[in-house]
Amino acid sequence: VNLVLLEPSEVGAEGAVTDVTDIIDVIIGGVRGRHLLNVLRVLPGQQVRVGVLDGPCGVGTVVSVADGAVGLRCTFETTTPPRPRVDLLLALPRPKVMRRLWAQIAALGVGQIVLTNAERVERNYFDTHVLTAECYRPLLIEGLQQAQDTRLPRVSIHRQFKVLLEDNLDELDGMAGQGLRLAADPMATTTVGTLVRESGQERTLLAIGPEGGWNAFERALLEAHGFRSVGMGPRTLRTDTACIALLALVHAAAA
Amino acid sequence: VNLVLLEPSEVGAEGAVTDVTDIIDVIIGGVRGRHLLNVLRVLPGQQVRVGVLDGPCGVGTVVSVADGAVGLRCTFETTTPPRPRVDLLLALPRPKVMRRLWAQIAALGVGQIVLTNAERVERNYFDTHVLTAECYRPLLIEGLQQAQDTRLPRVSIHRQFKVLLEDNLDELDGMAGQGLRLAADPMATTTVGTLVRESGQERTLLAIGPEGGWNAFERALLEAHGFRSVGMGPRTLRTDTACIALLALVHAAAA
Repeated sequence: VNLVLLEPSEVGAEGAVTDVTDIIDVIIGGVRGRHLLNVLRVLPGQQVRVGVLDGPCGVGTVVSVADGAVGLRCTFETTTPPRPRVDLLLALPRPKVMRRLWAQIAALGVGQIVLTNAERVERNYFDTHVLTAECYRPLLIEGLQQAQDTRLPRVSIHRQFKVLLEDNLDELDGMAGQGLRLAADPMATTTVGTLVRESGQERTLLAIGPEGGWNAFERALLEAHGFRSVGMGPRTLRTDTACIALLALVHAAAA
Repeated sequence: VNLVLLEPSEVGAEGAVTDVTDIIDVIIGGVRGRHLLNVLRVLPGQQVRVGVLDGPCGVGTVVSVADGAVGLRCTFETTTPPRPRVDLLLALPRPKVMRRLWAQIAALGVGQIVLTNAERVERNYFDTHVLTAECYRPLLIEGLQQAQDTRLPRVSIHRQFKVLLEDNLDELDGMAGQGLRLAADPMATTTVGTLVRESGQERTLLAIGPEGGWNAFERALLEAHGFRSVGMGPRTLRTDTACIALLALVHAAAA
């Protein structure tokens, strides 16, 4: 953990926080408290990086250590980190893979995670607890704490690919019309870097298909909705490896 | 599996194979046979991509299907795929993470995997079976079969970082003197892409430190041996995520 994330409620805010100007005292117990005590081994007087979910980062000074809990006196910056400029449209991988991906996607930085069905996604993948907020929210927060970000990726889950592309996609926050749309395709020869640098767009939506790829109908639908095919060379990668590699490439090209 | 890899002994070669000009019949049983039968559901007359470890790729026509084994009549290309132009110097992560990385590293494409100790690597990480060839070789092959490559990454394991850098590194095959040397550093502002594109070198050796980073001595030693610091922006990533992301960035910049 490189940053301790606080819930808005812990700093006395309701809902999202955009600025916190006061000095705020919080008591950190539970998993975070044990981590501070047993891994980071904090002592009174030390400082740790803190942040408020979807709010600003700041610094917490340890003011007390007792009963498995750590008291922090926090001050916050006046601005909130920008939302990552990449969104991910991902054909749902099998639960074991998805479970491992949550934290890694959040660490790499994604504004929105849009999970979808596809012909080559098994239907029962949607029934897993890995898709419940109780499961994925702590994993996303783990990734944010690793990467020192406060922007929790939004998550939406869609069981009908066609409906998603035709009706839902433009309604998802921040996706309306604008932005570069890319679809990973092992056959494509255009690279991510080329299109991202050329486009000059503020945001990129990256679509990654299932193991075995999108079928012809799905590919046509993506193309009809403005997605351009990008490749990563002749090597075919597993979904999870491709996901990390492509997010890194988009971020590097957009920087 | 996008390509079925054969051992040189299966095509009648001793040691590495550089070209196989004959038509060769092989019987594929075991795990590969079951995969062909139960996942790819091959039938007589169908063709599958084949390759010889460290040798050429080719095509196998299914000529028999019996008793959990598949008979393939194979022809091979006259050239062997080039060795990936990236080598990886990795501070040994914990066994569970390393176990997951083998196949992904092989899929992304690495000529040589050099594992090393560092101050922030726990000593007992070296005692795991994950570092035995019996464990990692099948995982590397799994990654190659995914990526359709035949070049098995060489693996070497070093318990003394100082000895590795001062005495062993130049003796490792293909590392002598030449090539770009990069060390991932969350603090660095120079990007992988910039240095790889500028260097014009044939090969890149990428060093990735332990969780918590190299210590000051190790960083100085890397610098003294020609490693230049590269960053990926302000987000700190876990070793495994960083490894995949950075290999993707080096490959994209070297392409």
